[in-house]
Amino acid sequence: MRKFVGIGVGPGDPDLLTVRAVKELEKADVIICPIAREGSESVAYKIAEPHIQGGEILRMVFPMTHDKDVLEKAWDENAKEIKSLLDNGQYVVFMTLGDPAVYSTYMYMVDILQHMDIEVVTIPGIPSFVNIANSINVPLMMGDEALTVVPMMKDGKAVEKALDDFENVVIMKPSHNRDLLVKFIEERKLQDRFVLVTSSGTDKEKTITDIEELRNYTIPYLSTMIVKKGGF
Amino acid sequence: MRKFVGIGVGPGDPDLLTVRAVKELEKADVIICPIAREGSESVAYKIAEPHIQGGEILRMVFPMTHDKDVLEKAWDENAKEIKSLLDNGQYVVFMTLGDPAVYSTYMYMVDILQHMDIEVVTIPGIPSFVNIANSINVPLMMGDEALTVVPMMKDGKAVEKALDDFENVVIMKPSHNRDLLVKFIEERKLQDRFVLVTSSGTDKEKTITDIEELRNYTIPYLSTMIVKKGGF
Repeated sequence: MRKFVGIGVGPGDPDLLTVRAVKELEKADVIICPIAREGSESVAYKIAEPHIQGGEILRMVFPMTHDKDVLEKAWDENAKEIKSLLDNGQYVVFMTLGDPAVYSTYMYMVDILQHMDIEVVTIPGIPSFVNIANSINVPLMMGDEALTVVPMMKDGKAVEKALDDFENVVIMKPSHNRDLLVKFIEERKLQDRFVLVTSSGTDKEKTITDIEELRNYTIPYLSTMIVKKGGF
Repeated sequence: MRKFVGIGVGPGDPDLLTVRAVKELEKADVIICPIAREGSESVAYKIAEPHIQGGEILRMVFPMTHDKDVLEKAWDENAKEIKSLLDNGQYVVFMTLGDPAVYSTYMYMVDILQHMDIEVVTIPGIPSFVNIANSINVPLMMGDEALTVVPMMKDGKAVEKALDDFENVVIMKPSHNRDLLVKFIEERKLQDRFVLVTSSGTDKEKTITDIEELRNYTIPYLSTMIVKKGGF
C-alpha cells in the first residue's frame, strides 16, 4: 500500500523536532513544504532545514482564503500531485508548523488521501502553546484543572465562555480583537493573571504581563496569551 | 548562576523525544527519574533509556497522595537534594513523562527551585493527547474551533460543561467515572463522535469507538477520550 508521512516540525527551534521526524526527513525522496502563495517562504522549511540532507524540496501552495471552492480545488490538486509521487515509488514527507493535529491544513489533505486508499502516518510536533508554557516555566494545567485553547474571534464569545468556565485558558490569535480581550481581563479582575508572548523562540520574542502595556500594544499575528485564574 | 534543566520525554516512543531533550540527556551528569515510591519503575526512564549514554540515574520519590504535608515535605527534600547536586557543579536533568507543562509534578519543583535562586530551563515534550490525535490522523481542532482538555472527576461537572460549550473535548482519566461518561455521551447523542484510546503507542494499545463496548469496558487508567461534535 502507498504510504504518506506527515510530520510536525514544532514551533521554531530546529532542535524541537522529534527524533522520529528527523529520521523521516532523512528517508524522504520528496519533502513537501506548504506555502501560502507562489514564491513565498516556507516557515516549516526554515525550521527543518538543518535536518534536511537530501530529498527534493517541493513547495506546495495552500491558499489563505475562506473561499471553500478555491480551497477544495487546491487541496484536490495537491492530493493528486502527492498520489502521483507515491505511485512513482517516492517516499513523501509533508511538513507542518507546530503539530499536525493543532490547527493545521494538513488534516484536510489526510482526509482526501485516505479516500484515495493511501495509508497515512502522522508524527506529532510540539504545539506552539505548549512551547510557550515551557519557555516561561509555567504549567498549562495541574491536578484536577482543565485547559481550554480558544482562538479570539471578532465577537469573542468563545473566549468569554472559556474565561468564565475554566481556570486555564490559552487564547490564540489575540490580535483579532485586542480591545475586547483587555475588557474581558479587566471585567474578571485577571490583570495579574495573564501573559502574552509574541514570536516565541525567535529573537523577536516579547512577553507582556502589564495590562497598561497591552492596552496600547499592536499585537502581532504570531502571539499567544495564557490566562491562569489561579495565578502564575 | 546554577542551572537546572527539565525535559519532557513524550508519551512512550523513545523516538518522540525532541532532539534538544536528547542533547540535554547527553550533557547530563545526573539524570533524575521521578518515581511514585521506593523501588518502583520509572516510566520516563524506560522511554528515554535508548538515549542515555552516561550520567548517574537518580530515582527521586514523588509520593502519590493528596496529603499536602506529605507532598510538600517530599518536594522540599527533593529540591534540597537537587540544589546540593547543582552546588557541586553537576549538570542535572529532570525527566517528566509527556510534557512538563501538562499535568506534571515537575512544575511544583520549579517553583521551589526558583525561590532558591536557581535558573530553570524547561524543554517541552509531546503531550499524550497530542500523540493520540496524530496516531489516529484526527485534528484536535481546526479553523475557528476551540479545544478543551479536562479530567473526568467523580462529579463530572467540568466534563459536562466542556461537552456543552466546546466542539472538541479531550477527556483525561475517563476511568474515574465510566458510567457518567457514557450517560453524557448518550444524552448529547455523541455515540458516533468519540474515540477512547488506551495505552497509546504501546503493544497494549486499544481503541474503542462503540458505545456498547464502552458501556461494559473496564477502562484502564492510561486512557484518553477525544470527543468531536463535528465528527471524525
